[in-house]
Amino acid sequence: MDAEARVTALAARVGPLDATVEAAARRRHDRLVKPPGSLGRVEDTGVRLAAIAGACPPPVPQRPAVLIAAGDHGVLAQGVSPWPREVTAAMIAGFCSGTAAVNAIAATVGAQVLVLDVGVASDLPDHPRLRRARVRPGTADLSEGPAMSRAEAAAALVAGAEAAEELIAAGVDLLVTGDMGIGNTTPAACLIAAVTGKAAADVTGRGTGINDATLGLKAKVVHHALDLHRPDPTDGLGLLAAVGGLEHAALAGLILAGAAHRVPVVLDGVNAAAAALVAVALRPAAAGYLIAGHRSVEPGASAALDHLGLHPLLDLQMRLGEGTGGLLAVPIVVAAAAVLRDMATFDEAGIG
Amino acid sequence: MDAEARVTALAARVGPLDATVEAAARRRHDRLVKPPGSLGRVEDTGVRLAAIAGACPPPVPQRPAVLIAAGDHGVLAQGVSPWPREVTAAMIAGFCSGTAAVNAIAATVGAQVLVLDVGVASDLPDHPRLRRARVRPGTADLSEGPAMSRAEAAAALVAGAEAAEELIAAGVDLLVTGDMGIGNTTPAACLIAAVTGKAAADVTGRGTGINDATLGLKAKVVHHALDLHRPDPTDGLGLLAAVGGLEHAALAGLILAGAAHRVPVVLDGVNAAAAALVAVALRPAAAGYLIAGHRSVEPGASAALDHLGLHPLLDLQMRLGEGTGGLLAVPIVVAAAAVLRDMATFDEAGIG
Repeated sequence: MDAEARVTALAARVGPLDATVEAAARRRHDRLVKPPGSLGRVEDTGVRLAAIAGACPPPVPQRPAVLIAAGDHGVLAQGVSPWPREVTAAMIAGFCSGTAAVNAIAATVGAQVLVLDVGVASDLPDHPRLRRARVRPGTADLSEGPAMSRAEAAAALVAGAEAAEELIAAGVDLLVTGDMGIGNTTPAACLIAAVTGKAAADVTGRGTGINDATLGLKAKVVHHALDLHRPDPTDGLGLLAAVGGLEHAALAGLILAGAAHRVPVVLDGVNAAAAALVAVALRPAAAGYLIAGHRSVEPGASAALDHLGLHPLLDLQMRLGEGTGGLLAVPIVVAAAAVLRDMATFDEAGIG
Repeated sequence: MDAEARVTALAARVGPLDATVEAAARRRHDRLVKPPGSLGRVEDTGVRLAAIAGACPPPVPQRPAVLIAAGDHGVLAQGVSPWPREVTAAMIAGFCSGTAAVNAIAATVGAQVLVLDVGVASDLPDHPRLRRARVRPGTADLSEGPAMSRAEAAAALVAGAEAAEELIAAGVDLLVTGDMGIGNTTPAACLIAAVTGKAAADVTGRGTGINDATLGLKAKVVHHALDLHRPDPTDGLGLLAAVGGLEHAALAGLILAGAAHRVPVVLDGVNAAAAALVAVALRPAAAGYLIAGHRSVEPGASAALDHLGLHPLLDLQMRLGEGTGGLLAVPIVVAAAAVLRDMATFDEAGIG
């Protein structure tokens, strides 16, 4: 089976949420010893977890993991970021040695950290945290032609799905998206503009913190790329091939794999949101398995989450990526499940 | 020393934040291996923790605890809540047995749960989680006269401070406010209106979920009480005596004790915010030690936090109290400290 056929088969494995269990979880919340609705979005999150698991109470996540999909970007040649390409590999070295923001935060929420090289352009030394599945050493410049071939997009997506399935097989019960790739907010903006129909200027942001001149250039690059490719917003692999990144492809695969296994996926920032649009283009039912961890300050992130009907749990004015914002939402997801499992009902408490 | 003199002495022990360490923490954040500012409010929180501790990096909280201050309310006779007074004791039984929302959430964030009876009107059986410091069995009806005497307000405040100091002596390094008391959002609204100068209707909310008719009645009760007492907004004990609750007094004491010991205090909802106004009236410097955990849907909570210059970490549409929203913010506070301690600088990472 070639990679594209594997993508099709994976997408077909994603089923609907369990509406019966969802209704049962909502009813249970109304009987727990608190005013109905008084836990707000924690209740909604718990109900969603039940619908995902097909069980009420849902299992309380015990083994969260963040998978940092990494790749480089040919479009960096257009000057969309002040950081050189080599920083991708240097940051991965930090993720492996445990000295980056994602490591510090993952440790506090009890999550393991893994890096998936699907498209880094530099050599990377072996490390237990690093999985190698490089499809190509960075994309081509999406402003001059396709970022990659359709087969490469499919291969990177399958690599992300396989990495997620390995984690699930090892007991991981909550997946968090992470990403690393200098320049990757440019393909993210392209994917988001292509799917949401918004103008380039409305979904292009400052990424790591570029100045006004670079932001103007970046929005022009995004606008030009969309004009050049005019990708079909319903064709997930076509979107990735035209204007995506290898890490976006891998994260779309992680999302589909999580959904196929009924494991919730917590989205981090703008790159995760772009990947989610691709996953949902491939299989609309995948949207039900997504929990938006936080609202990135990147404007494209909000546009994508609105399109997906997702409301982020956190809004902490973050824009780092790596999975940091998604990880900070993990304790809320865990608490949402614990509340449904551990609280007494009014009847049990002898109140009301 | 009488109770009022002890309050004065406690307030005097609250010192200013350490501005030198605060600046050092900000500089350290700008050298850590991420774009400056990209962790948003997590950075601000870490800088504040450093200024509180007088150390950069600040200690990473290891032993959080929520103290649930509990009391009953004479104003319940006015019909401000559909719940009978006895529910206060029934909920405390749940906190002790571990079956309430606060227990489920505290367990997921590694916090211990303690209950402080400063003014419950029912008998409570002994339990290891329950501390007895009842000043009186519920307040008098604040719509007809003072809720309590000034000496009683001071005694309840000292009881909260002593409970907090016991916890700190036992190693607790992060305090979360909790509260229980059927009817307590009415005195909270009174305290908030008195200090912020807002109209009763603008700070009175639905509490556990009252209907429009009860909400209208409740706002009238608040308006009438303020008219009756006209409390001096700069006199913390006078505010409590006129229109407060015994649990608000105790939480004001917890806040002052935390601040005096340079231990951060995470505020939960509207009752915590009302208590914080009292603590800050007694000692303005106490505001620096407060972290707003979440934005309660009670309108008075936002009014009080705005007055205090605090921006909540979470906005999850919660309105339960007990400490639940404050507890959900604990992992963010912990992560904020861990980031400053555990991340490498650009120099250390050999980047930039």
